[in-house]
Amino acid sequence: MQLLKEKVLNEGIVLSNQVLKVDSFLNHQMDPVLMKEVGKEFKRLFADQSIDRVLTIESSGIAPGIMTALELEVPLIFARKQKSLTLREDIFVEKVYSFTKQETNEITVSRKFIQPGERVLIVDDFLANGEAAFGLARIVEQAGAEVAGIGIVIEKAFQPGGRLLKEAGYRVESLVRVAALDNGMVTFAE
Amino acid sequence: MQLLKEKVLNEGIVLSNQVLKVDSFLNHQMDPVLMKEVGKEFKRLFADQSIDRVLTIESSGIAPGIMTALELEVPLIFARKQKSLTLREDIFVEKVYSFTKQETNEITVSRKFIQPGERVLIVDDFLANGEAAFGLARIVEQAGAEVAGIGIVIEKAFQPGGRLLKEAGYRVESLVRVAALDNGMVTFAE
Repeated sequence: MQLLKEKVLNEGIVLSNQVLKVDSFLNHQMDPVLMKEVGKEFKRLFADQSIDRVLTIESSGIAPGIMTALELEVPLIFARKQKSLTLREDIFVEKVYSFTKQETNEITVSRKFIQPGERVLIVDDFLANGEAAFGLARIVEQAGAEVAGIGIVIEKAFQPGGRLLKEAGYRVESLVRVAALDNGMVTFAE
Repeated sequence: MQLLKEKVLNEGIVLSNQVLKVDSFLNHQMDPVLMKEVGKEFKRLFADQSIDRVLTIESSGIAPGIMTALELEVPLIFARKQKSLTLREDIFVEKVYSFTKQETNEITVSRKFIQPGERVLIVDDFLANGEAAFGLARIVEQAGAEVAGIGIVIEKAFQPGGRLLKEAGYRVESLVRVAALDNGMVTFAE
């Protein structure tokens, strides 16, 4: 997605060979026009899929998620993250490890919002090790629903998440794929 | 806002005379068409204001915030919540007490995203005691910027936040105002 590549090149800050900071348009300040285009692009990429819901995770997934849901004319659900949790029967829970924060969170979705047999599109802002995407996919499957696909705004293709998700049988569409962050520079894949 | 009143009546669940659960369309599952209408309505209500940014707080403020920012053609910033924080020079920090969760969070915004002299519209999903809105307003003022107004999706008008914000000189526009939640029923104000 050309508009997004330009944003990454113009506004992304390479903090290390692992970390790309995009807080001016994606995960602290957000560019609503770009988010709208992201939604349109996910609609186009998954046009061959029937989709009943979009599922994302708080907080940075919500803006691309709601725009995708708007384009697809389906509801958005966002999973909540919590450090620990009293077990409750009315929610799906999965553990998700964050390599960035070096902590495990529990992510939760209310059972009433994913029904057996539904087809759910997962959307997230970043894909690195794939922990969050796998956690969301496990929640969809716990519900007896099916993952229609996984839409990612920025994939760090030098980390294993994308490969692992594809090996597990999921269709992953990333709007930009970053191949490397060496020498303070962003290099795109493909 | 009629569409929102209908949603509250049809899907809102009165858990007690203090708590209205709207997780089917506003703060867990989200209705993207409703969020788009919310954005249009805030644009209409604040049409007399010049607005440089929209500011909200994670997580449930992000969807109405991004739709408002899209309509106004300005960026959205969302404040992050954290339990405690290492002090850093590059962020604005304010303490916000949550009566619901009975805990104090620190809310933070990067200094680079609000400039002196800017006019900032604050948007949030709920207004009860006003703690979050006051915290966001103090961040705007720390930045030397000005609060152009406060847009609220659902105000619990039987709690003091709206009155306190108005007494402090802020313009508050709430899309629906709930006067009471007695006997399991929602009563709207005015």
